[in-house]
Amino acid sequence: MESDTAFLDATAQADLVRSGDASPRELVDAAIERIERLNPRLNAVIHERFDRARAEADGDVPDGPFRGVPFVLKDLDGYSAGDPYYGGTKFLRDHDWRPERDTYLTERFRAAGLICVGRTNTPELGLVPTTEPATYGPTRNPWDTERSTGGSSGGSAAAVASGMVPIGHAGDGGGSIRIPASECGLVGLKPTRGRHSLGPEVGESWGGLVARLAVTRSVRDTAALLDAVQGEMPGDPYTAPPPARPYVDELGVDPGALRIGWRLGAPSLASDPHPDVVSAVEGAARLLESLGHRVEESSPAALDDEGFVPYFINAYNAWVARDLDRLGAAVGTPVTADDVEAGTWALAEAGRAVSATDYLAAIEYLHGFTRRVASWWADGFDLLLTATIPEPPPPLGQFSGTPDNPLVGLFRSAEIVPFTAPFNTTGQPAVSLPLHWNADGLPIGVQLVAAAGREDLLVRVASQLEAAAPWADRRPPVHA
Amino acid sequence: MESDTAFLDATAQADLVRSGDASPRELVDAAIERIERLNPRLNAVIHERFDRARAEADGDVPDGPFRGVPFVLKDLDGYSAGDPYYGGTKFLRDHDWRPERDTYLTERFRAAGLICVGRTNTPELGLVPTTEPATYGPTRNPWDTERSTGGSSGGSAAAVASGMVPIGHAGDGGGSIRIPASECGLVGLKPTRGRHSLGPEVGESWGGLVARLAVTRSVRDTAALLDAVQGEMPGDPYTAPPPARPYVDELGVDPGALRIGWRLGAPSLASDPHPDVVSAVEGAARLLESLGHRVEESSPAALDDEGFVPYFINAYNAWVARDLDRLGAAVGTPVTADDVEAGTWALAEAGRAVSATDYLAAIEYLHGFTRRVASWWADGFDLLLTATIPEPPPPLGQFSGTPDNPLVGLFRSAEIVPFTAPFNTTGQPAVSLPLHWNADGLPIGVQLVAAAGREDLLVRVASQLEAAAPWADRRPPVHA
Repeated sequence: MESDTAFLDATAQADLVRSGDASPRELVDAAIERIERLNPRLNAVIHERFDRARAEADGDVPDGPFRGVPFVLKDLDGYSAGDPYYGGTKFLRDHDWRPERDTYLTERFRAAGLICVGRTNTPELGLVPTTEPATYGPTRNPWDTERSTGGSSGGSAAAVASGMVPIGHAGDGGGSIRIPASECGLVGLKPTRGRHSLGPEVGESWGGLVARLAVTRSVRDTAALLDAVQGEMPGDPYTAPPPARPYVDELGVDPGALRIGWRLGAPSLASDPHPDVVSAVEGAARLLESLGHRVEESSPAALDDEGFVPYFINAYNAWVARDLDRLGAAVGTPVTADDVEAGTWALAEAGRAVSATDYLAAIEYLHGFTRRVASWWADGFDLLLTATIPEPPPPLGQFSGTPDNPLVGLFRSAEIVPFTAPFNTTGQPAVSLPLHWNADGLPIGVQLVAAAGREDLLVRVASQLEAAAPWADRRPPVHA
Repeated sequence: MESDTAFLDATAQADLVRSGDASPRELVDAAIERIERLNPRLNAVIHERFDRARAEADGDVPDGPFRGVPFVLKDLDGYSAGDPYYGGTKFLRDHDWRPERDTYLTERFRAAGLICVGRTNTPELGLVPTTEPATYGPTRNPWDTERSTGGSSGGSAAAVASGMVPIGHAGDGGGSIRIPASECGLVGLKPTRGRHSLGPEVGESWGGLVARLAVTRSVRDTAALLDAVQGEMPGDPYTAPPPARPYVDELGVDPGALRIGWRLGAPSLASDPHPDVVSAVEGAARLLESLGHRVEESSPAALDDEGFVPYFINAYNAWVARDLDRLGAAVGTPVTADDVEAGTWALAEAGRAVSATDYLAAIEYLHGFTRRVASWWADGFDLLLTATIPEPPPPLGQFSGTPDNPLVGLFRSAEIVPFTAPFNTTGQPAVSLPLHWNADGLPIGVQLVAAAGREDLLVRVASQLEAAAPWADRRPPVHA
């Protein structure tokens, strides 16, 4: 293997294997070397999987589109048979809990030829948009190690942004793919609800709000990965209409003149976004216009519905309480206040006080909200452009609860997710693209949201933007 | 108009309009005449809509596949703008509640050219599989007026079985399309979850368990109706993969040699089905075998999971409690114990005691159950054959609660729904077909269940069975 593979995307690394210029083992060894070198400064990978990865690389690697390419699994949602799965908790670590089988998504990653070299850090149960769990310590942003990587897929994002691996598994229940992508300068696509299966362990997660895929450095990697994993499994509660053709076939295809609405203000927040974020959104709007799209200031009126936050919080608290019940059932011991962070416990306590009828009222509200938001697309818009988060990557240390005020970190979280969380409720596909860096060299993503089922359109426009304003040559200060 | 249209199916009645042999007004007048003549004995139609129907027939009737054909809407789920909607309750009647707009399904019925001549009886909130609401009295079975029509779509079933109209709108949250079809000798197809929209008022009903369509006298009517209404609306929580071609194109197409499993015993019931029901299922199995299918005794093992009933009941109670909350919100006054039947109130009281975490545990169980059931189809079976209900149409009067024992009627209900309710949980399409009549001349349906999304297969096989064992010439003692 001649070249340095660190900043080759997964498609390019797979090409090396296909052409015989690199073996899976060489790619895996190179990734392990990078992790060993960079991880002490970033704390992205919390469970090494080096020996198993080497053995898998030496064995029969499935002949998929990413044959022999190293990647990481997030230590939340991404079961890998026999490997530790702690979900950011002390509780599961103390019980050294390991799933007996892969999730369907992990199976599909493996069938695509990807080889997992490690499992990445996550906030406890993915509850906050920063990756600073008490038990595993903060993951640091390769662009500024005093800053957050976002969350909850911040470990994966740091691993990909720093060049350890080209693909990091990620999941998104309120922005947890898109926010780390924004804060680390990556592509983060949340697929349509039901695009692939979340099974076999669960049907839905957080009432259907959680979607999973990855953070990557190129649009083509995201497209090819989505092709590799899309499609339902028997008994899935949600399905998405199958794509008319592979997503990779959308790359570079002229999307024509789309009608794109944009907004600057964050739903449910009084203050304006940071000026650097305004610059990012305005720059993206100008770029889209220069590419021939019709860009106008418009967004779904329902995004400003005042009912959204209180209903959402009721449901969210109930999901957290149920998550703790499930952890307890998995290991056979109930979770206690000492087992989790103070903020997590406070949410769960609130969730235990929610009645089923209040929960159902919340779901009905969120379904109605979904209809109202979706009507904006049905009325003629193709895409919505917003910021991904209202500010540059925040400094570490702002999201922890205190014994006196366990929820203070969660209130801070509410300032980060207003652009992303609504589209978990609606189940629409949305992508964060790294189109802007501020004067401090920090990446600031923008979000594009399509109608349900229209990842094809997101891939097409994302590849158009990537070609017009490429980011592949940008390197963070901490890199391989 | 020369011929008697009473027992023409909707497709044949529409042909009369298309050929100029009948006008919409003539078809509507004929249906009204039949309702006026038969309804005093059957109590199928509880809200006449004669004047509006005549005016609509005289106006511009949409040029759909059923242009000018009279039909009935069930007084549960089927909003018709400005018409009374009481849902089987005294509460909504006392407030004379009327929706301001149609449901999407009603809109599609109208766009298909159907003209609503009346609204049909339903048990209170559709909670039991018989149509004997305290407020509106029992609907009587045209095959034996001392017997139940089933429920909750029993009013529609009596209207169609007696020849008042060829299509009766129906909804099914635990068997409420299929059970009345079975008890009244009709075709009753419950579509795949998400086949069409339940909006705009709601996203889902009973956690996704409710599906809606109709009872009809012919398979072709069901197929054409499904073609007319299928397809999602923006913001639907569930969608089904679109059919490869229209369902009417499946009619008469050789399904080839399918692998069909059957079972006699009812899930979660200790006793065997009634001998007449055994005869119906065994007869259907022999008929399928004679048509070249591979028929074997097999069914999803998960149908016998012991967890199903307790989890289901927890969720069901919560749905009932929430239904009452919604009624109260609709009219601006909370529902009290005096406003509803004793059994309804008892369920709601139980539902109010369910916590959100218990509800979520139930949903997780039901999602897991769905995967386990669906795996039987994924493992190679095409269809499951069962009874629709374990007994012949039961006598009226068995399902009412008493002040001392308000739930006794609901326990009786549990004996009727064990074959149907599991497939509300799984969201699979299922049809009841009138393939058997017992020695007393009572219809006994059998149920065919396909994998999610495979209504095409049900239509194909149902039309094959209809051709092999036609029922179109059977007339109940009470008929037009």
